[in-house]
Amino acid sequence: MKFSAAVIEKFGEGPSIREFDTGVLLDGEILVRLEASGVCGSDLHIFSGADPRIRLPMIPGHEGIGIIEDMKGALSDINGEALKRGDRILWDRGIVCGRCRYCVVEKKPFLCVNRMVYGITFNIHDVPFPNGCYSEYVKLAALTATIKADTCLSSEALVPVGCSGATSYHAVEEAGLQGGETVLIQGPGPLGIFTAVFCRERGAGEIIMTGSSKSSRRMELAKSFGVNHLLYRDKMEGKEQEEFVRGITGGRGADVVFEMAGTSAAVNAGQHFVARGGKYMIAGVAVPVGDAGIDIYGNLVRKNATVKGIWVSDTSHLFKSFEVVRKNEYPFEKLISRKYSLCDARKAIESVNEKNVLKSVITL
Amino acid sequence: MKFSAAVIEKFGEGPSIREFDTGVLLDGEILVRLEASGVCGSDLHIFSGADPRIRLPMIPGHEGIGIIEDMKGALSDINGEALKRGDRILWDRGIVCGRCRYCVVEKKPFLCVNRMVYGITFNIHDVPFPNGCYSEYVKLAALTATIKADTCLSSEALVPVGCSGATSYHAVEEAGLQGGETVLIQGPGPLGIFTAVFCRERGAGEIIMTGSSKSSRRMELAKSFGVNHLLYRDKMEGKEQEEFVRGITGGRGADVVFEMAGTSAAVNAGQHFVARGGKYMIAGVAVPVGDAGIDIYGNLVRKNATVKGIWVSDTSHLFKSFEVVRKNEYPFEKLISRKYSLCDARKAIESVNEKNVLKSVITL
Amino acid sequence: MKFSAAVIEKFGEGPSIREFDTGVLLDGEILVRLEASGVCGSDLHIFSGADPRIRLPMIPGHEGIGIIEDMKGALSDINGEALKRGDRILWDRGIVCGRCRYCVVEKKPFLCVNRMVYGITFNIHDVPFPNGCYSEYVKLAALTATIKADTCLSSEALVPVGCSGATSYHAVEEAGLQGGETVLIQGPGPLGIFTAVFCRERGAGEIIMTGSSKSSRRMELAKSFGVNHLLYRDKMEGKEQEEFVRGITGGRGADVVFEMAGTSAAVNAGQHFVARGGKYMIAGVAVPVGDAGIDIYGNLVRKNATVKGIWVSDTSHLFKSFEVVRKNEYPFEKLISRKYSLCDARKAIESVNEKNVLKSVITL
Amino acid sequence: MKFSAAVIEKFGEGPSIREFDTGVLLDGEILVRLEASGVCGSDLHIFSGADPRIRLPMIPGHEGIGIIEDMKGALSDINGEALKRGDRILWDRGIVCGRCRYCVVEKKPFLCVNRMVYGITFNIHDVPFPNGCYSEYVKLAALTATIKADTCLSSEALVPVGCSGATSYHAVEEAGLQGGETVLIQGPGPLGIFTAVFCRERGAGEIIMTGSSKSSRRMELAKSFGVNHLLYRDKMEGKEQEEFVRGITGGRGADVVFEMAGTSAAVNAGQHFVARGGKYMIAGVAVPVGDAGIDIYGNLVRKNATVKGIWVSDTSHLFKSFEVVRKNEYPFEKLISRKYSLCDARKAIESVNEKNVLKSVITL
Repeated sequence: MKFSAAVIEKFGEGPSIREFDTGVLLDGEILVRLEASGVCGSDLHIFSGADPRIRLPMIPGHEGIGIIEDMKGALSDINGEALKRGDRILWDRGIVCGRCRYCVVEKKPFLCVNRMVYGITFNIHDVPFPNGCYSEYVKLAALTATIKADTCLSSEALVPVGCSGATSYHAVEEAGLQGGETVLIQGPGPLGIFTAVFCRERGAGEIIMTGSSKSSRRMELAKSFGVNHLLYRDKMEGKEQEEFVRGITGGRGADVVFEMAGTSAAVNAGQHFVARGGKYMIAGVAVPVGDAGIDIYGNLVRKNATVKGIWVSDTSHLFKSFEVVRKNEYPFEKLISRKYSLCDARKAIESVNEKNVLKSVITL
Repeated sequence: MKFSAAVIEKFGEGPSIREFDTGVLLDGEILVRLEASGVCGSDLHIFSGADPRIRLPMIPGHEGIGIIEDMKGALSDINGEALKRGDRILWDRGIVCGRCRYCVVEKKPFLCVNRMVYGITFNIHDVPFPNGCYSEYVKLAALTATIKADTCLSSEALVPVGCSGATSYHAVEEAGLQGGETVLIQGPGPLGIFTAVFCRERGAGEIIMTGSSKSSRRMELAKSFGVNHLLYRDKMEGKEQEEFVRGITGGRGADVVFEMAGTSAAVNAGQHFVARGGKYMIAGVAVPVGDAGIDIYGNLVRKNATVKGIWVSDTSHLFKSFEVVRKNEYPFEKLISRKYSLCDARKAIESVNEKNVLKSVITL
Repeated sequence: MKFSAAVIEKFGEGPSIREFDTGVLLDGEILVRLEASGVCGSDLHIFSGADPRIRLPMIPGHEGIGIIEDMKGALSDINGEALKRGDRILWDRGIVCGRCRYCVVEKKPFLCVNRMVYGITFNIHDVPFPNGCYSEYVKLAALTATIKADTCLSSEALVPVGCSGATSYHAVEEAGLQGGETVLIQGPGPLGIFTAVFCRERGAGEIIMTGSSKSSRRMELAKSFGVNHLLYRDKMEGKEQEEFVRGITGGRGADVVFEMAGTSAAVNAGQHFVARGGKYMIAGVAVPVGDAGIDIYGNLVRKNATVKGIWVSDTSHLFKSFEVVRKNEYPFEKLISRKYSLCDARKAIESVNEKNVLKSVITL
Repeated sequence: MKFSAAVIEKFGEGPSIREFDTGVLLDGEILVRLEASGVCGSDLHIFSGADPRIRLPMIPGHEGIGIIEDMKGALSDINGEALKRGDRILWDRGIVCGRCRYCVVEKKPFLCVNRMVYGITFNIHDVPFPNGCYSEYVKLAALTATIKADTCLSSEALVPVGCSGATSYHAVEEAGLQGGETVLIQGPGPLGIFTAVFCRERGAGEIIMTGSSKSSRRMELAKSFGVNHLLYRDKMEGKEQEEFVRGITGGRGADVVFEMAGTSAAVNAGQHFVARGGKYMIAGVAVPVGDAGIDIYGNLVRKNATVKGIWVSDTSHLFKSFEVVRKNEYPFEKLISRKYSLCDARKAIESVNEKNVLKSVITL
């Protein structure tokens, strides 16, 4: 079957819209007619050439949702429900080997040494093909984990679960919330918003969001997603900010701080908000940002604090974040502030830089 | 290639030695020339028809080790080391689907709803074939996790790691030893011996083994595998036994008790040895044994105790138990008390009933 | 100062109302003028003589809340907030030694070998005195942990947190909910209701409550506390009940089952609801109920399931349960269905047996 | 009773030997005739004025062991064993309040906001007095946790357990070793040596020690305490060092790295040794050392790594480290390279700077 896809052929140029053929299906493969493809911050890094994993030419797009057009064999989703043509599905953007030490011994498949990612690590000559979501179709390899998207939420609202949602869930899960913790989230983007939701669902106490006035629309929106307090970092000195946080936390600081802003400046600032015995989860950084200076005695040792880096996500995180989102208890439809057609892929990618666009989606 | 295997065609009869052909290899498959096949307590249940998972005719044998005779494609073991013809390997006896909720969300692949086991759930008409280890050859499916057996230990000494070792490791891991705990193990069979080793390696304090005088040879041997105290249960009343354990534990009882005997009588007795705050791990029971009476108030609630059932094992347990065994710091060679040829499979299976045979192996 | 208290002098009789003097305060002690004293199921056991910890004559009442009348020294609550006369406070009903193995090594002070409990383990000749809450005053020993009750909830609504709330929290915490689990709770009493709330706050998925038609008012009320599904156990056969639960859980059973009914019959039934990989938390049983038969292979080993007994609670559980309740997001005021005066202590105790009285309180 | 103690009256001077009177005992207090007082790296900071917690004049010495000279009341140790005059005991150097949020809710008493430490936070005008171990006597407050030192090890060999042992244990415990991990320890001092022992006891795989040639005696000694590999950091470039570690770990790096050297330079170097999915435990830094630059993307996020600071220790760590040491399975007597009399306290303190003195002790 003929179909169109956006292809990055040269960093910083295009992407061009090209026509391909879906080819034949092998056993276990699923051909999906895409309904929506999320535009992730990483897409901008991919487009510009900042992400070292990219081999051109390639089709970007790692957050996808769509309808099963065709499949080979009797397949079922993670819940064991049989899949059939016409079902709307989500899937894990990563394909893991299931046999390396990280997959089977450490049970951290997000570290799988053979992990391949739709819309990131494949190029157009690899199989399966098509293998990115800025496309009318994508073909899912036999080992891909799938979930039936049985909820009334629109495909546009659901699609960010595939990466932002799953990665945020990973961070919240590794933070090990027990209930009652004061949480501070740096950065009101999709990662930050999802983090607020998952912390709220895990029984967090107060949730503070920090961001700049330029993101005031995002900040205000965060209040519908479980955030109690907004801290505009451009309106207060660092010490004042710390005072503000201590004022909310009985003088202790935040039990868990989530870095969801992606800069080393955020890390420099965020460590000071952490309470004694607290945790600092760094999940926003996705490309090299250089060193951040950590006050070893004051912010680590004296506090007996933990700093954790969070790398991507695995199927468990996708599954559990979808379980929360499908209940539709937060205004997820409002997360999507822009919709683009495939032809406007370039504009979609560039919209990542606009501070008051929360999330863009390419509708297909 | 022609080869011989022991086949159970009717419960309680044979097994007969039949000749088959190894057929062709598909991509990712490995043909292994077996060197040793462990005789497990389960084999007796399989032979007699007590295990409901069995479909006849079938080749028993789920603990195997051997030499790669042939393989299709470039394959590597869990550690990422390339495999080649002539390598001696171990493998996980279970093949899991890698996409069900238990595999990818709960990360407990030992509960995979599609788990298949060499020498147990396959019959001779299934693929891959040959698929049991009472055989000159076994063919490993593409999803099988493998480990290069790079140690000077003999194949006979290593082969019990595949089931007894891995299952014991699973029990010890779920017990969550932190170091210093007093441990009591019921049953000096292979499961009990491996449990002693893994507890010792995890920093256990005193380790007590209980068993009957009929198993005195096994009991004595256990002292070379980390056990400090022997408790002959046929030489003391129940109350006296509890007194004995309290005498060793400052009056508290055992922090962790492992049921490795396989009877409900053991469970009835074992719960009384558990200290307040302690754990009772039940891993010896592998076929229905009826109800055991648990004193809910006295042995569970008042003690704030935990009782856990342990079902089989997964690749992580196999890997980690092999990591301990390969260091060769305990006399594993002495675990094997009988060696049989394939023609004597019947005798090998029946030797499970002999209390002073610790472990039998079929050498190939 | 003179005050009145209800005193059990003979099991099954009285209690009589007697007058005492509050005496002098030692350093660190607090004299509290009680506002409310909760009537707990245990009070009936205490009154009847079924609880072996009781030494007569004694003042019952272990759930209390009141106003600081006097105190000796500069004291602060758990949050470090200075206490002063006139403050309304809650406190941990248990006083622990802080130096035994359970307190300082295992960090399970609820198992402290020297634990003393207001209204349970003290008699009227012990110090501190008064030491039970069916009284106008109670005197708190220096080691008692306190919390300022800074919320608009009434003292009647808050007082059950002291025992039912804290014990339920303990059970939920040891269940280790990660979010998304299906929960089944046996018994719609105060323990069951609090359990529903805490599971909901920890991100549980579906919550099923089982009970009998006689408790239909409690059952209906449970729906305001996070319960989604009611299962009337007298209206269905056991197999039908299991079918009902499987229907809600995609065929798997409940991830966590909480026994909050206090009978071995509940344990016999409840084990069948547990999913593979699931947990059974037994917290309702508070006096000896004999053995329950557990299907070792079917419900423990084959499921790789966990059964845990829960014994009382410690200060951490009290603190965290209060943190949830103070937010006032569930209709806690409705938990209290009967209020009694101190003179009616006998009627208050006997109301425990009325299936449609959720919780009685003695107001002071 | 008259006794002598070393008193720091001015930073960098003395300490002077002064005579005091032990005074009377209050209920629960114990007067200990010291046998040995460990000289800790912190004593040098205390002496020089670098430790901000010090109020002069004070008696240093926070690692002590001695004989009960007198006691008030019936007391018992953590194990519940009755104490009596003449018993040799160890004790937790920290006294915690048992009622703050860190003590009773978070169960991290090492973060207790009211923690007092013998030989550090007391001055000579505080009670109890004497309150430091560079002294013939020390008086233990009623809340102090004690352990009978029932082992044949000498007091000199046991005394480092009180601080170095307990703190190392804390670090190893928070590292959560499961068995089989490759461990790298930076710094062959007492902390590093104890860390090696506790990792070995918890089932670590390979253990690598890094240090400089100046500490070659310490490095060589470390091999008797569980270390398998020595890495002299002054003999290899950084990249070479990383290569060396990868060579031992199948290319992965160390699963757990322990910083036991106390410098930010160590932190700068150590982060590179951590494997993907690994942990970096920072426990050697005990005074402000400025910022260390952490490669956020490369060493935290991309590795999904954890960095944890470790602050002091609590009674559980002391207890468990003593449980290991008392078994006497490592040459603990060799840890002590210098013994001083009380009069030579200054020399003892200054010996901390000598790279080939492992541990000094003041014998009393």
